[in-house]
Amino acid sequence: MDIESKFADITRNLRGSAVRDLLKYADRPEVISFGGGMPNPLSFPLNEIKEIIDHILDNYGAKALQYSSTDGVEEFREEVSRRINSRYGFKSTKSDIIALNGSQTGLYMVSKVFLNKGDYVISEAPTYVGAITAFNAQAPVWAPVDLQDDGMNMEMLEESIKKVISQGKIPKFIYVIPTFQNPAGLTWSLDKRKHLLEIASKYDLIIFEDDPYGELRFDGKEIKPIKSLDTEGRVIYMGTFSKVLSPGIRLGFIYANSDINKKINLLKQGVDLCTSTFSQYIAAEYLKRGIIDRQIPKIVQLYRKKRDIMIEALETYMPSDTKFTRPDGGMFLWVTLNEKIDTEKMLKKALEFNVAYVIGSAFYPDGRGRNSMRLNFTFSKDEDIVEGIKRLSRAVKEYQP
Amino acid sequence: MDIESKFADITRNLRGSAVRDLLKYADRPEVISFGGGMPNPLSFPLNEIKEIIDHILDNYGAKALQYSSTDGVEEFREEVSRRINSRYGFKSTKSDIIALNGSQTGLYMVSKVFLNKGDYVISEAPTYVGAITAFNAQAPVWAPVDLQDDGMNMEMLEESIKKVISQGKIPKFIYVIPTFQNPAGLTWSLDKRKHLLEIASKYDLIIFEDDPYGELRFDGKEIKPIKSLDTEGRVIYMGTFSKVLSPGIRLGFIYANSDINKKINLLKQGVDLCTSTFSQYIAAEYLKRGIIDRQIPKIVQLYRKKRDIMIEALETYMPSDTKFTRPDGGMFLWVTLNEKIDTEKMLKKALEFNVAYVIGSAFYPDGRGRNSMRLNFTFSKDEDIVEGIKRLSRAVKEYQP
Repeated sequence: MDIESKFADITRNLRGSAVRDLLKYADRPEVISFGGGMPNPLSFPLNEIKEIIDHILDNYGAKALQYSSTDGVEEFREEVSRRINSRYGFKSTKSDIIALNGSQTGLYMVSKVFLNKGDYVISEAPTYVGAITAFNAQAPVWAPVDLQDDGMNMEMLEESIKKVISQGKIPKFIYVIPTFQNPAGLTWSLDKRKHLLEIASKYDLIIFEDDPYGELRFDGKEIKPIKSLDTEGRVIYMGTFSKVLSPGIRLGFIYANSDINKKINLLKQGVDLCTSTFSQYIAAEYLKRGIIDRQIPKIVQLYRKKRDIMIEALETYMPSDTKFTRPDGGMFLWVTLNEKIDTEKMLKKALEFNVAYVIGSAFYPDGRGRNSMRLNFTFSKDEDIVEGIKRLSRAVKEYQP
Repeated sequence: MDIESKFADITRNLRGSAVRDLLKYADRPEVISFGGGMPNPLSFPLNEIKEIIDHILDNYGAKALQYSSTDGVEEFREEVSRRINSRYGFKSTKSDIIALNGSQTGLYMVSKVFLNKGDYVISEAPTYVGAITAFNAQAPVWAPVDLQDDGMNMEMLEESIKKVISQGKIPKFIYVIPTFQNPAGLTWSLDKRKHLLEIASKYDLIIFEDDPYGELRFDGKEIKPIKSLDTEGRVIYMGTFSKVLSPGIRLGFIYANSDINKKINLLKQGVDLCTSTFSQYIAAEYLKRGIIDRQIPKIVQLYRKKRDIMIEALETYMPSDTKFTRPDGGMFLWVTLNEKIDTEKMLKKALEFNVAYVIGSAFYPDGRGRNSMRLNFTFSKDEDIVEGIKRLSRAVKEYQP
């Protein structure tokens, strides 16, 4: 059978990456992997989930196992709306919320709603690799804007927008992860958040704010989501239960204005019909009972310590010309090595030493970041973090360009 | 904000249908709705699910709540492979299976993998409305082929294929629901299944076999899926747990050859990253313990009776020129009324009488089927089926063209 000729143009070009193939080795038990983006298993409130499920099956019974409406279960949307309003000063109602099978599908659907082939999308550089994968399914043109310690380089952003407009196009949206960014671990200042909104308003642009880590602040003063400053309905806010409850139940949500939500919802009928009813009842109960407010401090304590251990190990063992970010929260930090080092080439060596990471270029739609890498500090055991960084430093020292 | 200009061309044209809006009235408690496609709540093995979940949380713990690989949890894929091999004589291994967040997302992803805008897709006429929604997100050209009592009109199919080829294109795939078809309730004969494979082989085409209802046979001799006759790897087989366990846990699967699976899996990384780990463990255990084999006869008994009640009520109360199918299984039957009747226009009248259905034209990509309707017989209570058909017959009798 001639299968190649039958694929759509976009999917014909989908290829598994060599790096992903290499990372399969990271599953071996002897490898300490900083490569994944997994929450620590200790962060899951296992006993509380048991109690909640008993309650749901006893009280909702078959209803929790039935189809639910495409936009989500009423109880879930109500609890989410209540939560984000009280946490962030949002003014949502339950009908502004759409339940998602995890925020990955939100990335996919928002890109599908807005992007024709060849349309421009602006992102931070580096940006989340999963967003690159999702958006690329629509074959857009990327306009990545450098991320600084306090947010995007705003001059570069405005230049970039002007350049797109001068070509007779508009950037379809600006995708940002402003708090504890993935992969950089950086957080936008309040000033830059306001500035971004001003620019979006000036050029009539949409902002897609992805906020998976906002609840996981270890230090410093909270900075509200961009959405909380949005008076014109131009911010699509996306949250998830993957980092504060469980990623395995696949549950996220979007809060956006009704014109946008209507389109997402119509698309969602075709993409997945509805989100797990069962997962939505679990999360609704998790919020309703206030377990989330008892659980988050535990997760924060667990992760803060792991971040500190990783930073100390990096300072102790890595070559002195190594730079890295010091995140106030989230799950990742970003390491920049001597510019002679290509982290993709080095990965094989690292795996020989039984340590893994994600190469920096995976986070740049334009392939930059070759001497950098993303390290996850939440998944590994404390002692493995130290040992893993030791191994990493050996790989760096033995690396031959 | 000018939002319309920002939508992608395909999504700009997505509109909520007037019929869907009307069907919101069907949620009122006084309405007897044959409109939905929901399993009966009594079909869910609630106690067994409770036991399974206890077992999973006690034995797998955090693993059941963690991310899992894009193609699915090993235990799930293994149990599914074992099941379909023993049920249908397939020769699958666990690596041939991809877990899905419900089969709707399988419809979406397969269409996204194969269809460029303007590509041809062949389907039965009528066909599943959810497939129309999913495929239309890629803006294909539909080539619907009339469904007869024993399967597609094969002459029309071959003509249709030749016509597409004469335009320098190939039909990207042939989408069929050969067993207890949705919406028609009809089942393809073994002869036509073989014939379809021959034609597919002759023109080197892919068959997309959707089999959500195959386990729900009330009468007659089992006819194996088309996939069981497939020696050339050209059939994509899709199954679901929505009708034999629970639709609310969102779980389906695809069994296809590795070239196709690879593409689906690469796309799935962007579309939803992974399928609910928790749901996969539940289904794996449901299969492993053999509960499915005790549950299906109960579901079949429940639904057979409901089908019989609906058929008897249709015979008793509907005008004598009414035709309808007599399904050997599944969830739906298809009613064809006097050709003067437009079921879309009649729906308002039916809702005044507090009864609902899905209009026939919803199942035709080309808008035919105006004097027909789909009735679901699995969801309503026995007495409501009789009362609902009485109301429907009143609506038909009072209908003014």
